[in-house]
Amino acid sequence: MLMIDRKHCEDLDRRDPLARFRERFLLPEGVIYLDGNSLGPLLKSVPARIGQLVEREWGEGLIRSWNAARWIDLPQRVGDKIAPLIGAEAGEVVAADSTSVNLFKLLSAALTLQRGRSIILSERDNFPTDLYVAQGVRDQLGCRHELKLVDAADIRDAIDEQVAVVMLTHVNFRNGARHDMTAITRAAHDKGALVLWDLSHSVGAMPLSLGAARADLAIGCGYKYLNGGPGAPAFLYVRRDLQDRIRPPLSGWMGHREPFAFVTDYAPAEGILRNLCGTPPVLAMAALDAALDIWAEVDLAALRAKSVALADLMISLVDEQGRGLGLTLATTRDAEQRGSQVSFAHPEGYAVMQALIARGVIGDYRAPDLIRFGLTPLYLRYVDVFDAVAILAEILRDRLWDRADFKRRAKVT
Amino acid sequence: MLMIDRKHCEDLDRRDPLARFRERFLLPEGVIYLDGNSLGPLLKSVPARIGQLVEREWGEGLIRSWNAARWIDLPQRVGDKIAPLIGAEAGEVVAADSTSVNLFKLLSAALTLQRGRSIILSERDNFPTDLYVAQGVRDQLGCRHELKLVDAADIRDAIDEQVAVVMLTHVNFRNGARHDMTAITRAAHDKGALVLWDLSHSVGAMPLSLGAARADLAIGCGYKYLNGGPGAPAFLYVRRDLQDRIRPPLSGWMGHREPFAFVTDYAPAEGILRNLCGTPPVLAMAALDAALDIWAEVDLAALRAKSVALADLMISLVDEQGRGLGLTLATTRDAEQRGSQVSFAHPEGYAVMQALIARGVIGDYRAPDLIRFGLTPLYLRYVDVFDAVAILAEILRDRLWDRADFKRRAKVT
Repeated sequence: MLMIDRKHCEDLDRRDPLARFRERFLLPEGVIYLDGNSLGPLLKSVPARIGQLVEREWGEGLIRSWNAARWIDLPQRVGDKIAPLIGAEAGEVVAADSTSVNLFKLLSAALTLQRGRSIILSERDNFPTDLYVAQGVRDQLGCRHELKLVDAADIRDAIDEQVAVVMLTHVNFRNGARHDMTAITRAAHDKGALVLWDLSHSVGAMPLSLGAARADLAIGCGYKYLNGGPGAPAFLYVRRDLQDRIRPPLSGWMGHREPFAFVTDYAPAEGILRNLCGTPPVLAMAALDAALDIWAEVDLAALRAKSVALADLMISLVDEQGRGLGLTLATTRDAEQRGSQVSFAHPEGYAVMQALIARGVIGDYRAPDLIRFGLTPLYLRYVDVFDAVAILAEILRDRLWDRADFKRRAKVT
Repeated sequence: MLMIDRKHCEDLDRRDPLARFRERFLLPEGVIYLDGNSLGPLLKSVPARIGQLVEREWGEGLIRSWNAARWIDLPQRVGDKIAPLIGAEAGEVVAADSTSVNLFKLLSAALTLQRGRSIILSERDNFPTDLYVAQGVRDQLGCRHELKLVDAADIRDAIDEQVAVVMLTHVNFRNGARHDMTAITRAAHDKGALVLWDLSHSVGAMPLSLGAARADLAIGCGYKYLNGGPGAPAFLYVRRDLQDRIRPPLSGWMGHREPFAFVTDYAPAEGILRNLCGTPPVLAMAALDAALDIWAEVDLAALRAKSVALADLMISLVDEQGRGLGLTLATTRDAEQRGSQVSFAHPEGYAVMQALIARGVIGDYRAPDLIRFGLTPLYLRYVDVFDAVAILAEILRDRLWDRADFKRRAKVT
């Protein structure tokens, strides 16, 4: 007999204060979706908003909608909706471009602010695109700069007076480990370094406190826990007192003081808006805008509590049902040091994930050997976790992953 | 009696080989749309494609659609659809980011290729965001570079051995003047300079011959003559033999050789794909993709012929009906030196344009005094031009623009 049975999970769902949000999402039949940290699902409110945008605002309104439908303000309005989720104030966040492009902007600006310091300090296992972008910034600015990578545990000790900026992803994309934002920010400031947080794997998964931590700069993703749709615009944050010191390297017209004066010389807008570059992608911005409305109703402390409970449940279930089946927990058991995902290593991780997906349990695989499950409290039930682990255990016990079609790598994994 | 009457225009429409394309567009009742060079109208095929993308591919398919719906290939597939419109080959174009961001990428890369040369040469009246981006690139790379601006007529004479790259917009956004792409490209190459063309105001308005001209680099806009929707993704072109020499400054994971290997070091993809940066905005990309399908049926020589005829007609009608009403033609009468727009200066240009819009004639205003009419052959009729000029003449004759509400400036003009 199981220690944790399905009925127990049903009881947890009945008492879940966030349970009512699930029905706001379109979740396909027969799917347990544990990949909301890669691509959030569709909120039922979004198709109507997109339909109105396309047929009314674009189709009927045409160019007039830049004013009449307030397209021009979307980057700021969307940013203002994100601000409370990250502990920022209105006017400190703007939605724009992709996470990678926004990282380029803020990292370049940070190095310009920190003339005389040469090091970008980051974590060896940071999300690769962050490292790639940092390598691009370093090469662009010439040989004066160095990208120094250390293990997560060694970040604080590596901060010294040569460090211009500490660039970290708050929650690690592989193992779900979470940095202490307040402690690292303080350690950086003690040495005169700036901190740039990538919040892609934490925004919408837990309360965040950029303001309280006095964090300098941040970026984040719109299509994971924020459910903004595939390739949704990203966002960036600059603490208010730093904003007018930023010189944007991507100095496009949307960040100009007077974009429609069409003067020859660039002059940055005041405040956060100078970090805009080109014309905003209105369709994608509107989908994100609509998806963000749900957050006005969400208690972020309750969200975090459920996230922790879902992860604890998954770990306990795998302890119980997955014993001896080749899984190694890759995520810490200490909730304080964890984001909102649980990962397990398995030598055949890729094929195991394909077998899971074939059974309707969608997580994802991260090279070389991790299967990763995102735990998204707005629409996941405790019984979903129970059922997912039961299917995982069956796949492993019966070696159902051992099929040629599960081992054949697709382009996107 | 008028020299050119409405019946003559109706005859022209009856004989127009492109007339059948008009019904593919959703054009609101009571509107004559002369602003397709700012925001193209909605093709009737687009809403269904967006609806399917949102509800089926995102809603039902979720993360699986990156492979199953081929989202991952969209930047290249869209690029391959644009290629024949600009005289490029498949594999030389990719859709991504905004025009400004793409300009930053290619201009930075060009300067890196041209080490030892210090000058970015451009036109004083280039589209401002292009100049702003060039100023950003110059500042980012340090004081080694200079942005040199000259009048359009002086470009060729200003190309010398110090010029790294000649950066020009093919058709001027204000007066519609068109550069000779072949001649300027040749003049640049004669001095060892690269050429970077901004095709925003020419792609989809006329045939283009980047390949025949041996042009090096180009960028362009998706939401003007290509009708991709507000803030649609832009595109970039790199001539094939230059592609593997480009070192992208915005080195994000989508341009990595193996984006899903999640290795620590950046290694650029082969060919054009290295110029991608972050995750593509799938909604916006799909709208552009759907909008591009019409071009497979369009004869670009016939498109250009109609564009010239529409502009000639507008100029003749204003000659006849606008005499003594304060308009000054700002566009050349020589079709060879013209794009696909006609602009007139008027001291009260802003108010005149507001009065036109109030009467359903949508063009736009460009500071300080221009009213601008985009002539888009796929959906404009000769009678539209006739009616627009008649309304313009009436507004000027009766000073209908002289109202406080027409003079009050909106945020976007």
